[in-house]
Amino acid sequence: MRATVFHGTGDVRVENVPDPVIKQPTDAIVRITHACICGSDLWFYRGVAETWQPGWRTGHEWMGIVEEIGTEVKTIKRGDRVLAPFAYSDGRCEFCAKGLQTSCVQGGFWGGEENDGGQGEAVRAPFADGTLVRVPEAAENDARLLDAILPLTDVMATGHHAAVSGGVRQGSIVAVVGDGAVGLCAVLAAKRLGAERIIMLGHHDARLKIAKDFGATDLVTSRGEEAIAKVVEMTKGGAGSVLECVGSKAAMDTAINSTRPGGAIGYVGVPHGSEAFELQTLFRNNLTLRGGVAPARAYIPELLADTLAGKLDASPVLDQTIGLDDVPAGYAAMDKREAIKVMVRL
Amino acid sequence: MRATVFHGTGDVRVENVPDPVIKQPTDAIVRITHACICGSDLWFYRGVAETWQPGWRTGHEWMGIVEEIGTEVKTIKRGDRVLAPFAYSDGRCEFCAKGLQTSCVQGGFWGGEENDGGQGEAVRAPFADGTLVRVPEAAENDARLLDAILPLTDVMATGHHAAVSGGVRQGSIVAVVGDGAVGLCAVLAAKRLGAERIIMLGHHDARLKIAKDFGATDLVTSRGEEAIAKVVEMTKGGAGSVLECVGSKAAMDTAINSTRPGGAIGYVGVPHGSEAFELQTLFRNNLTLRGGVAPARAYIPELLADTLAGKLDASPVLDQTIGLDDVPAGYAAMDKREAIKVMVRL
Repeated sequence: MRATVFHGTGDVRVENVPDPVIKQPTDAIVRITHACICGSDLWFYRGVAETWQPGWRTGHEWMGIVEEIGTEVKTIKRGDRVLAPFAYSDGRCEFCAKGLQTSCVQGGFWGGEENDGGQGEAVRAPFADGTLVRVPEAAENDARLLDAILPLTDVMATGHHAAVSGGVRQGSIVAVVGDGAVGLCAVLAAKRLGAERIIMLGHHDARLKIAKDFGATDLVTSRGEEAIAKVVEMTKGGAGSVLECVGSKAAMDTAINSTRPGGAIGYVGVPHGSEAFELQTLFRNNLTLRGGVAPARAYIPELLADTLAGKLDASPVLDQTIGLDDVPAGYAAMDKREAIKVMVRL
Repeated sequence: MRATVFHGTGDVRVENVPDPVIKQPTDAIVRITHACICGSDLWFYRGVAETWQPGWRTGHEWMGIVEEIGTEVKTIKRGDRVLAPFAYSDGRCEFCAKGLQTSCVQGGFWGGEENDGGQGEAVRAPFADGTLVRVPEAAENDARLLDAILPLTDVMATGHHAAVSGGVRQGSIVAVVGDGAVGLCAVLAAKRLGAERIIMLGHHDARLKIAKDFGATDLVTSRGEEAIAKVVEMTKGGAGSVLECVGSKAAMDTAINSTRPGGAIGYVGVPHGSEAFELQTLFRNNLTLRGGVAPARAYIPELLADTLAGKLDASPVLDQTIGLDDVPAGYAAMDKREAIKVMVRL
């Protein structure tokens, strides 16, 4: 089959790779119909994080049709449309039981050295029963609905994790740091959870427009100290929930200094250089820092229900659609910020 | 009056200073009967933190008898025995209302440049109604009970804050990092909240004995990686609640790596050098970091009720008792770890 392979900084290629086969009786083979390129893919693409080795497969956001199942798979059958969270999980361990499937004792992530990636024609999905979520057949003929479901694999679930971790609830005053696809989804998630005021900190007109559409009530386009001062002024002392959706030190410090004493920072930006931050301020103001890698599998059922009901649609963040052969161009477009987030349709 | 004044690294002196007088109608003057030296006093005493200037007053843990009140003080009267949390607060603002009195908009801390410190004969207490807590008259003739009440001013309230912030509840598996007075009180607090297992990480025999008396079920006396491995092994993957009661980078990293995925770190050690820590581990494991400067004022009523009922007594951490003139020797004893925590009786 054809799949995307990382070769080095700025270099991903669509190549022939071995077709996936059932290895464990709990596996399923899924023919991919939709995938995405993630902002976190840019970390290795740009050479910022050296976590990805040349030769490794890429892509962790995907949806498709089950082509084959192992002998022990019980809840998924051939022909089912399924989506996958960006991490697979056995569905049976202590952590899966408590909704923290990203810490599954047998779990892992798509792509890399050993697993198929989502930016290809098919994947072998381990622990199909634990990992995959069925999409009702009725959705099959609604292309727009399928597009709305796709972001639940990662970006919308991650935005939701930021909001949940930041303690957003009915009437909350929220600030969102970062107008990337995750930040925009965090706005949508905060709105969905009943936030009264949602202040988006960002700099890109097209993204800020989506933020408004998603429910942002205020936009702050300045940076650093100036942006912090603005949020503190607007909220008379800081927002009770601040959602950090970047992962840089600047974003974390902005978040910390924009949070009201006793408030919470929901952080979902993969930390890059933010390991040293203003812990003294966190301490003095009794701020809660909560978040991390989103347990998308735990959130998908409720988010999918709202999506099927027409109440949730993060697909406007997918502002460019390409075919599989164009994945390298899709990376380049996201790298140059010509696209917020790229969808791959196969 | 006589009071303790900081002069420089390793140099505190008991000197003549002006008697406190009512400045605001909401003030009270309190004659001090009991005070403490705090582990956090050692930061400036040792010259580690340059937050304290020569000439500033010291001491923030005290109890005494009200000698005079301002015209607007309503709930406290002359002759009352009162204790004070280590921060004063107006009792009226948004933060006082939500139990975060350490962020009171008009609040502050004892000692320093402008306020009287607790290690002296008397203090002017701002916002007496908001700040001070009355001790029932019946306690007056019970010297041991008064000793048990004294730790509520800071150390016991701080240990409780660690436990609450770390999410300790009935049946929790808890690890406590640090066998100083705060760590010991955190053990007592965790026990009080119903923890099933309490693992104390520490190195000093006398302190570990108190930890056992306070409810520690297990002791880990190794350090660093070895201590982490031990806790992870004992708990088969980490404790759900880890209470960081030191404030150093080593302690924070030990806490982060001893916490079970999805668990919480309740941190109350004033950060010194822990500003850069393993945020990646926090992120990967979805750990919650919560805590900070303890809102002792919010906790004192419930802790005092238990103390008066004979159900709570942290006074074993006060292992040395001195008079006011011996405060410099008390600092030296704590600096050399000859005392866990020093009580001053006037």
